Amino acid sequence: MPVLRPRPLPPVLLFSLVPIASWFLVRPLLDPLPAIPALYSSIGFSIFAFLATIYLVPALGPAFIKANLGGVDLLKVYDSGITKEEKLIPESLGLVASSIYILSLILFIPFAFSKPIIEHSTVKKPQEGMTVVEFPHYQLAVYLSSLLSLLVATLLGFLDDVFDIRWRHKLPIPIIASIPLLMVYYAEHGNTNVVVPLPLRFIFGTLINLGPLYYVYMALLSTFSTNSINILAGINGSEVSQALIIALSVIINDLLYLPWPLDFKIPLHLLGNKAELEFGGVWNAGMAHGSRELVERHLFSLYFMLPLVAVCMGFIYHNWYPARVFPGDTLCYATGMAFAVVGIQAHFSKTLLLFFLPQIFNFILSCPQLFGLVPCPRHRVPRIDRNTNLLHPSTASEKQFPAPPSRLSTLILRTFAVLGLTELTTDPNTGVITNSTNLTILNFLLLRLGPMNEKHLVQVLMCSQVAGSIFAFFIRYGLAWLVYDGDRR
Amino acid sequence: MPVLRPRPLPPVLLFSLVPIASWFLVRPLLDPLPAIPALYSSIGFSIFAFLATIYLVPALGPAFIKANLGGVDLLKVYDSGITKEEKLIPESLGLVASSIYILSLILFIPFAFSKPIIEHSTVKKPQEGMTVVEFPHYQLAVYLSSLLSLLVATLLGFLDDVFDIRWRHKLPIPIIASIPLLMVYYAEHGNTNVVVPLPLRFIFGTLINLGPLYYVYMALLSTFSTNSINILAGINGSEVSQALIIALSVIINDLLYLPWPLDFKIPLHLLGNKAELEFGGVWNAGMAHGSRELVERHLFSLYFMLPLVAVCMGFIYHNWYPARVFPGDTLCYATGMAFAVVGIQAHFSKTLLLFFLPQIFNFILSCPQLFGLVPCPRHRVPRIDRNTNLLHPSTASEKQFPAPPSRLSTLILRTFAVLGLTELTTDPNTGVITNSTNLTILNFLLLRLGPMNEKHLVQVLMCSQVAGSIFAFFIRYGLAWLVYDGDRR
Repeated sequence: MPVLRPRPLPPVLLFSLVPIASWFLVRPLLDPLPAIPALYSSIGFSIFAFLATIYLVPALGPAFIKANLGGVDLLKVYDSGITKEEKLIPESLGLVASSIYILSLILFIPFAFSKPIIEHSTVKKPQEGMTVVEFPHYQLAVYLSSLLSLLVATLLGFLDDVFDIRWRHKLPIPIIASIPLLMVYYAEHGNTNVVVPLPLRFIFGTLINLGPLYYVYMALLSTFSTNSINILAGINGSEVSQALIIALSVIINDLLYLPWPLDFKIPLHLLGNKAELEFGGVWNAGMAHGSRELVERHLFSLYFMLPLVAVCMGFIYHNWYPARVFPGDTLCYATGMAFAVVGIQAHFSKTLLLFFLPQIFNFILSCPQLFGLVPCPRHRVPRIDRNTNLLHPSTASEKQFPAPPSRLSTLILRTFAVLGLTELTTDPNTGVITNSTNLTILNFLLLRLGPMNEKHLVQVLMCSQVAGSIFAFFIRYGLAWLVYDGDRR
Repeated sequence: MPVLRPRPLPPVLLFSLVPIASWFLVRPLLDPLPAIPALYSSIGFSIFAFLATIYLVPALGPAFIKANLGGVDLLKVYDSGITKEEKLIPESLGLVASSIYILSLILFIPFAFSKPIIEHSTVKKPQEGMTVVEFPHYQLAVYLSSLLSLLVATLLGFLDDVFDIRWRHKLPIPIIASIPLLMVYYAEHGNTNVVVPLPLRFIFGTLINLGPLYYVYMALLSTFSTNSINILAGINGSEVSQALIIALSVIINDLLYLPWPLDFKIPLHLLGNKAELEFGGVWNAGMAHGSRELVERHLFSLYFMLPLVAVCMGFIYHNWYPARVFPGDTLCYATGMAFAVVGIQAHFSKTLLLFFLPQIFNFILSCPQLFGLVPCPRHRVPRIDRNTNLLHPSTASEKQFPAPPSRLSTLILRTFAVLGLTELTTDPNTGVITNSTNLTILNFLLLRLGPMNEKHLVQVLMCSQVAGSIFAFFIRYGLAWLVYDGDRR
């Protein structure tokens, strides 16, 4: 592979987005007032965030290398004669993406919460159907605390990149980042009740107040969403593509709860059950079934997810195989925190977790290595065959492998091997395990589907993420009635 | 000078602070409820912040050097045989101080704003006099937006340290950091009226609505407070001592507005004018004269200044001559932003500016160099005489000095020289200016008071800052009636 040049940016396409974005920004100030004016501003800011990301990421890359934030892509085979300096790829560019993301969320504040813009809108004639002109006032504090958490996550992620914090020390970082969220949740006397699943109601009743445990749950949710993205890393585009697909899944879920001007009820109407199964329509607001609170929660989520998708799209353009920039831990922390924020504040954390199926799978698979039952090398990324340019499953270090492994380790590894999750090397004489492939979803995919190149592997990973989301929707809207009745948050 | 070891931390003294701080944290939950319960929590958190700073700053120093954030103190004469590595002093440790500062402000949220703690307090019997149990609800958004601005300032300050942003590019950084403040101010429909001074009222009336100009004023205030501290840097302890003294001045000013349990009215009472000049007392709340809003504003300011003083005190212990750590730009940005926040949100920006008299003097003095009329070297710190260890005024580069300087430059330099602000070198034949001392307050002090060592110079600087604050109080409470009537915000 020759030295990489930055990907070209087609100016015509990109500059044509500026007037479109501007129109979205101005639209809420024009007649007739749309049902959800701030949604237009959010889309406008998102397009600008996309443009800012796609332009600034390559522009700022050299400054990162100069500041000692650069690394060599270990899974690339370069032409001979290329020096190490030429191979250096700027790292931690996720900082630029996260900063643009947070800045666009800050600039959005007056559009969603300001009195002056609202006063402009109240002099207009009232809308038909459900309109969400302004958020209730207390939501501003919630919104700001979410921004604080995102910013803390970004700062800590960048510190992680600069100071190269050790694995065990960085696990609690998301908990620190979630403190603003928890503090304001407490100050606002946030709801700590949880709806009990049907099979357990005979013990706990319909609602159970988790009290302080609810705060523990929130902190753990942010820890999970952050670290689960962070450990599924190592190949070009893997971190940002996960974030992109999860964010898109959350957006699709949010859209189901909005008051659409077009009427979704038609297919259900044909079933002859108009009054009860009406789905969509300006008054019913889709799955919200007329609940203004549910609409507001999912709007809140949308306002965080739209610019996130935008910066991820701008970033993946430069991070796509072969990558011109690396995201660093910063992007993982910021995106993971963004998911935790919407899951907590918009009260759909269980649905959110369903969108993390590949991450949950990867986490469970990784547990034996994370908890020290199986040797864990510093990097568990797949191994490249420098002749064929194909990736193969990497193995835990043969040297560090204890001989023989403990009975628990052997049991787990043998079980994983039977399930096809890992491949073991055994001593031909004694049958003792001497090595195993690293326990990650990437190595698992290579094991099951055979060696492939890096681009193909990230595509397969993205497909599994999409498949996971489709399955999640099926569970959430198809099977949830088995364990919960009525409308679920 | 030998290699510096970290300053020792007396454990007995420090650990005796832990029970005191804990008592302050617990006090608001005990009977009888104090008039301002959150003030006790704020003091408690401040003591913990002091302890965290004084312990963590030296503990984290080596990590900063490892991450390439270290520098050699240019104004020190080391013993021969000391390597450059041994001379390295960790830089940007202001990041640690700012992070502790912001974290303590975040943890304080439930104590000032939470419903649960308030509900506990309302079951107690009502207090005598003015009590401020909880802030009005909208204040939480204001508080959070202030935290966001502080955090953005910290992040950008650290980026400045890592990426070494150029002077002209970093000037607008505080404006970016003030965006959250401005956005929420707008969303909350903040007051943009200004009281007109008496001599101008015949033109503008009593109140003038500045509208958008008020936002420009706020952004410029944050730019000034941040950069003016940043450019008065260069000797051990100069940045943090400025911040410390300004913060203490703001605290003294705030204390004048609180409802003190002890009665300040006695001296004025003796003048026989009890009814009107009553000063202090639980109902009158000092200078607030019974205005609950003024009390709340100055409490808001206190809650930001108390932990700031605490972290500055913890930091200066290690930054005092000869410095074991450097603050970096991070501390200047965070403290400057903290002052802008309280000036804007508590509406005493004019009083605040009075506490910046040495900075204003330094800024005006620096203008010819900042705006390119006089050559400006990269560093304008005083020059050390390596034999006597005394500091002398440094000069602008003789080489870069244009020959002859422009007429405007000559005029300004000659005027400054006549006023004793600078010392010029002239060509003995032509009389043309060939060099001048650098135009900073540090060089000015050395010029007027003669060469002195670094420790002495920072003490003189601190004295001038204290003198400035005393003069500020004299203007604010002695002369303000000349240009304003009644109670001034």
